[in-house]
Amino acid sequence: MTQNRTLSTEIATYVGQEVTLKGWLYNLRELGNVNFLILRDGWGVVQCVVARSIVTQLKNVQVESIICVTGIVVVAKQAPNGVELHQCHLSIIEAVEERLPFELNQKRIKANIDTFLNHAQIGWRHLNHKTLLQLSAGIMQGFRQTLVQIGFTEIQSPKLVGSATEGGASVFSVNYFGKSAFLAQSPQFYKQIMVGVFERVFEVGPVFRAEPHDTSRHINEYVSLDVEFGFIEDHTTVMTMAHKVVAGIITHLAENHQSAINFLNITLPSVPKSLPSNSFTEAQQLIFEQHNEDCRGEPDLTPQHERWLGKWAQQEYNSDFLFVTGYPMEKRPFYTHPCPQNPKYSNSFDLLFKGLELITGGQRLHRYHDYLTALKERGLSPSQFASYLDTFRYGMPPHGGFAIGLERFLMQLTGEANIKAVTLFPRDMNRLEP
Amino acid sequence: MTQNRTLSTEIATYVGQEVTLKGWLYNLRELGNVNFLILRDGWGVVQCVVARSIVTQLKNVQVESIICVTGIVVVAKQAPNGVELHQCHLSIIEAVEERLPFELNQKRIKANIDTFLNHAQIGWRHLNHKTLLQLSAGIMQGFRQTLVQIGFTEIQSPKLVGSATEGGASVFSVNYFGKSAFLAQSPQFYKQIMVGVFERVFEVGPVFRAEPHDTSRHINEYVSLDVEFGFIEDHTTVMTMAHKVVAGIITHLAENHQSAINFLNITLPSVPKSLPSNSFTEAQQLIFEQHNEDCRGEPDLTPQHERWLGKWAQQEYNSDFLFVTGYPMEKRPFYTHPCPQNPKYSNSFDLLFKGLELITGGQRLHRYHDYLTALKERGLSPSQFASYLDTFRYGMPPHGGFAIGLERFLMQLTGEANIKAVTLFPRDMNRLEP
Repeated sequence: MTQNRTLSTEIATYVGQEVTLKGWLYNLRELGNVNFLILRDGWGVVQCVVARSIVTQLKNVQVESIICVTGIVVVAKQAPNGVELHQCHLSIIEAVEERLPFELNQKRIKANIDTFLNHAQIGWRHLNHKTLLQLSAGIMQGFRQTLVQIGFTEIQSPKLVGSATEGGASVFSVNYFGKSAFLAQSPQFYKQIMVGVFERVFEVGPVFRAEPHDTSRHINEYVSLDVEFGFIEDHTTVMTMAHKVVAGIITHLAENHQSAINFLNITLPSVPKSLPSNSFTEAQQLIFEQHNEDCRGEPDLTPQHERWLGKWAQQEYNSDFLFVTGYPMEKRPFYTHPCPQNPKYSNSFDLLFKGLELITGGQRLHRYHDYLTALKERGLSPSQFASYLDTFRYGMPPHGGFAIGLERFLMQLTGEANIKAVTLFPRDMNRLEP
Repeated sequence: MTQNRTLSTEIATYVGQEVTLKGWLYNLRELGNVNFLILRDGWGVVQCVVARSIVTQLKNVQVESIICVTGIVVVAKQAPNGVELHQCHLSIIEAVEERLPFELNQKRIKANIDTFLNHAQIGWRHLNHKTLLQLSAGIMQGFRQTLVQIGFTEIQSPKLVGSATEGGASVFSVNYFGKSAFLAQSPQFYKQIMVGVFERVFEVGPVFRAEPHDTSRHINEYVSLDVEFGFIEDHTTVMTMAHKVVAGIITHLAENHQSAINFLNITLPSVPKSLPSNSFTEAQQLIFEQHNEDCRGEPDLTPQHERWLGKWAQQEYNSDFLFVTGYPMEKRPFYTHPCPQNPKYSNSFDLLFKGLELITGGQRLHRYHDYLTALKERGLSPSQFASYLDTFRYGMPPHGGFAIGLERFLMQLTGEANIKAVTLFPRDMNRLEP
């Protein structure tokens, strides 16, 4: 914004001219005759060849000090962006006096995950971590652009709700002017309601799960990319849409975030025209045959089962993605549409990405009386869901949808082992700061 | 999605051909010899000329039933989109048996705001209300596109926080695994922290205010469009950016949402190249001179003061927008940067839109020791803000930002008298449903 300031990404167009850069003192390397100062700004780093006097000027300040460097842009093949600054002048805008909790100018942060998370307000400045968040923004952008192009409308539904979405226990309660409110576990009810208005809706927003698990795959607040739409045949229409959205996100990343992908040394998955798909019972049979573990009859898959299935899809179809369809009704929420041929199973699916559930979706009930029956069967009271249920009294088409966990997508895309390393200020049972 | 289905917005390209439409039974008008059935889908309405037999077929069902109509597209100048369907066949997909709480196919919903809000899950289907939400999505889109184009990165910060942002009382508390957490009143701390990473960041997300006011301008959860960026001169750099973002949103609406704007009969405000600006004390002097109300020396402006100032900007500058700068420090949060020449006042601003505060922003403190002093002066403990404060120990540039209330923007744009009428499922002291 400030006049005469040039950004790191712009200087290559100023060869031979004097520019002024502002940013953070990323590194200072004294190599005897020549000294390199590396300046970092919001978009990249710039190498500056500096005289002894500048090294002296920086003697009493630490890295991450805010500095301003003026110099002449010179072509230098080995430098970032192929240019560096010569004949530099330096002024210190804000001096840092304390040593950082860990080094930011090394290839990796040398700290365990807890130390990183305790100082994440500084840790995200590291180029690797910062680049992860650029991809996170890219996933959200790709999601939105794909959906807007095919007639979806974005909504922002309330997160303070009067009743727990799933009727379950894993919900945070809020003191709401002396009464009880809850934090939305998902925008499920609202996105369904809005199918009655726009037919095709999506939302990007926080969801809250009070699950008392502290694992490398769980966080208690995450960003959910939600989709819901009407006039479907059944869950297979929803799977086609989920496939299209995943392909749209990957294409968006390839077209707009190639430098981040290269920097992190990631290979984007290919999204084939047709994704492999197993029914839930086929998947269990496969696990039994291949790994001699008999989970047939169990109501759900374990993380190990998902990893085995992911490996199988990789070997058999060369695919990072695998649909598993028709989960048992007993493990799915009350609004799930049963399979008409075999109502013990549901018109639902998961999409596994590299052996981890990335997407959950399916067809929903759309008839008022079906909801009353479903709630009764589960011992839930319709009065608790009265305003949601009213939607179905006044005309709803067959519909369905799905949700993508933003952080899980990023975790699998980058191969990070812990979801907290790819979450901007994660919340777990013991962590509410920073 | 379903094969062979044509959308309302597409049929004009099928003149002379048979199409199949699916949607809601919006209206049925029997005019003696000719009967009109109006079908509504997610994007518009279609007029169908139907025989007596179809009227009979619909005898026992209510509007909002889900239907499928097949017919030949015929040019008809007086019909929506200039076409209508002839030689129609109808099938009923889902019959509605109950009467609606209010009519959806009238020009306006004939119900007071409370009745509308009690049945908002149906009320948003009304074409006026639905169109309002399209503009809401358009504001979010315009906001994002404007900022991404000038190098801003989107973030999603946590809403469950360990300490209250402003240190104030109007914060909701959450039972977090037996401990106390709070709902974020704004992404303020996180967007500042992320200036240290990306320099320019924005966020679109919910914020929560436990203010016990039940007025036509307040809601307890709203969507905040937040911006923060570094290397500013002072608050005037932030005002320039706010001006640019508002202009970007209005331009986006004009270019992409003209039919919604026409339908609602709205005139978009013009955003002049230079916006009028008054200092806080000038504004008070003006009110004194023009309205004989002496508020000079008061620490804040009242809603009536803002309306007077809005009228004045309209008369004097033909502008819907007016900046008011330099609010007294005592009414601004602790992270506000004081005016160097007169530290009783702040480097902050409001932007009034048609006499209502739309944007609040300003320059923030950026030095660790300034934060310690500011907290001490207000009797707040630094330990409560430790992880936020660490950011400033490790190098932060002069920075600032602002926030736009999505619903307030929509309210002023459309001239709605009550913010709850433009909020998707508003939350107030007495309302958590639908």
